[in-house]
Amino acid sequence: MPKRIYNFSAGPATLPYSVLEEAAQDIVNFKDKGIGLIEMSHRSKEFMAVADETEALVRELLEVPKNYKVLFLQGGASSQFFMVPMNLLGADKKATYLNTGTWAKKAIKEAKLFGNIDVAYSSEESTFNRVPEADEYAVDQSSEYLYLCSNNTIYGTQFAQFPEKESMLVCDMSSDIFSRQLDISRFGIIFAGAQKNMGPAGVTLVIIREDLLESTPDNVPTMLSYKTHADKGSMFNTPPTFAIYCMGRVLNWLKEQGGVAAMQHRNEKKAALLYDAIDGSDFYRGHAEKASRSLMNVTFNLPTPELEAEFIAEAATLDMDGLKGHRSIGGCRASIYNAFPKEGIEKLVAFMAEFAAKNG
Amino acid sequence: MPKRIYNFSAGPATLPYSVLEEAAQDIVNFKDKGIGLIEMSHRSKEFMAVADETEALVRELLEVPKNYKVLFLQGGASSQFFMVPMNLLGADKKATYLNTGTWAKKAIKEAKLFGNIDVAYSSEESTFNRVPEADEYAVDQSSEYLYLCSNNTIYGTQFAQFPEKESMLVCDMSSDIFSRQLDISRFGIIFAGAQKNMGPAGVTLVIIREDLLESTPDNVPTMLSYKTHADKGSMFNTPPTFAIYCMGRVLNWLKEQGGVAAMQHRNEKKAALLYDAIDGSDFYRGHAEKASRSLMNVTFNLPTPELEAEFIAEAATLDMDGLKGHRSIGGCRASIYNAFPKEGIEKLVAFMAEFAAKNG
Repeated sequence: MPKRIYNFSAGPATLPYSVLEEAAQDIVNFKDKGIGLIEMSHRSKEFMAVADETEALVRELLEVPKNYKVLFLQGGASSQFFMVPMNLLGADKKATYLNTGTWAKKAIKEAKLFGNIDVAYSSEESTFNRVPEADEYAVDQSSEYLYLCSNNTIYGTQFAQFPEKESMLVCDMSSDIFSRQLDISRFGIIFAGAQKNMGPAGVTLVIIREDLLESTPDNVPTMLSYKTHADKGSMFNTPPTFAIYCMGRVLNWLKEQGGVAAMQHRNEKKAALLYDAIDGSDFYRGHAEKASRSLMNVTFNLPTPELEAEFIAEAATLDMDGLKGHRSIGGCRASIYNAFPKEGIEKLVAFMAEFAAKNG
Repeated sequence: MPKRIYNFSAGPATLPYSVLEEAAQDIVNFKDKGIGLIEMSHRSKEFMAVADETEALVRELLEVPKNYKVLFLQGGASSQFFMVPMNLLGADKKATYLNTGTWAKKAIKEAKLFGNIDVAYSSEESTFNRVPEADEYAVDQSSEYLYLCSNNTIYGTQFAQFPEKESMLVCDMSSDIFSRQLDISRFGIIFAGAQKNMGPAGVTLVIIREDLLESTPDNVPTMLSYKTHADKGSMFNTPPTFAIYCMGRVLNWLKEQGGVAAMQHRNEKKAALLYDAIDGSDFYRGHAEKASRSLMNVTFNLPTPELEAEFIAEAATLDMDGLKGHRSIGGCRASIYNAFPKEGIEKLVAFMAEFAAKNG
């Protein structure tokens, strides 16, 4: 293994090194067949087996019920922002959205093109530093669904529990899927871009309850109807074969690590190390309210923007990269997805103590 | 280099081995920076340089004029089938389409959702065995554009010259882009999925004349407006970083080979070897009319479907893979894109002679 930096990037993000090695091997010569993975027809039996294995791992690790389809689409979570309402709504239909960050807000903007959108909660005035408690918003009975973004990458907030409302949930899980156990049956649609917990950018996982495949209006383009892709096993057109392959390898690694429950336990421990460092110091200040803290993205500030810039630059010289907060809120952010090693967090925590002592 | 089969797949298709080797190296440790290519933030200076280089190579190799934008999108050419009319048409607008194969027909279906579509030519009755001459169809003056698919992968036909009509052209070049020289200025939009001549599946190249970015109706979702992506240098959301990287490496290889003009010359010679073998035999019969023959996909039949199956199976035992024709027309198809080596065609031609002698 070459020397590896600690990559705190919010996404694309660090991946298990064993997966990178497997991919490197298969790209030049897939299973010694004299052909590279990315040269193979998506309809070859070799690639069909890859896609089938990836889907099986999604189903096994998330315990996806039989009445849900697992799709591999393109266009990122950003394309789901319009595909969801385009398929589920119509001029006379309503949906409820929770505005807990940049990505939720973008989803709301697109949804308004397709239906009557009720924004039942917003934390925008406090720079999205929290997600709501159950009693802070209501969902109209006539809503087709309640939409939320489970983890707000930019602001470092996360729903610790999913809303206990009667409505069917639709959820953007781009930055925390496979990080904790779920009861899929409460969701109508779950979607997630791969580039945080699942693999490289270029594939979007969609888990959709089968009955919803019938709700698409007739004037929706073929490629934008979930049913098109569900009916063809995500092979209506050429799928992003490399990204699907990598997702399979990452999920295989996750299974070897003990699955989602074991990963959740690890993630809780990893995040606690960092939050303890923040809470145990007057020098660092967490952006998110404690009850809303994310286990995936830890956002924090130093006393001044100048010290933050110095902190980030010095960390980079120590091979801790990607600690700069998103440009919309500044500060620092440590993204510590499933594949981020505990050792990197320990190193960061030690550096934080040292930096505070020197500059506090 | 491990033993390599000859991969006649229509796409994803064979790539230069040197590109596979570069990708394998960069995936585990990009330029020795201690981070893999697919783990890097798309906004890192390292990846921005990759994307910039890829765009510069597209511009240089195709001599793209300054008033055109080069975009890297997702969703395949199939998504362009609806994006083109969604952005350029409207209920009161007209466009002209040439129906020369499965993919053109799919584009026509989607376009009808957005405007008044005139299908000015169709070769469907003769199983799409030809593309039209200039005098075989007319383009209404009120048409916003004339749409064509330059190379019909499934049927093995190709426009040897682009239509000399007054209309702006919109062209699906998925299976022959970078295979021959072009005068880009005649086109409003060119699009192409990467997985034939440019790299792995997962990125779609779009070259669009700047003035067309202003024609999108207001109710188009953000992600489906070309302007969104043009304004943000294809980084409105996370782009498919690996596929863009690979495209850059393939185009770099193409430049080393002498560029598009040299490649066109090579492609003409390569295809001639195969067509000469077909024409010089009573055993093999080309599907496409001679004037419409593709330099990328050579489609042919043997006297019976049984012999075709035997031919394909025997070729596979000799490490010539992917010769089965598309399920919609059967027979045989040899896809010989830029990266397909001449030696593989020579081997196939020799096998064809042998097989005909044995079974003729």
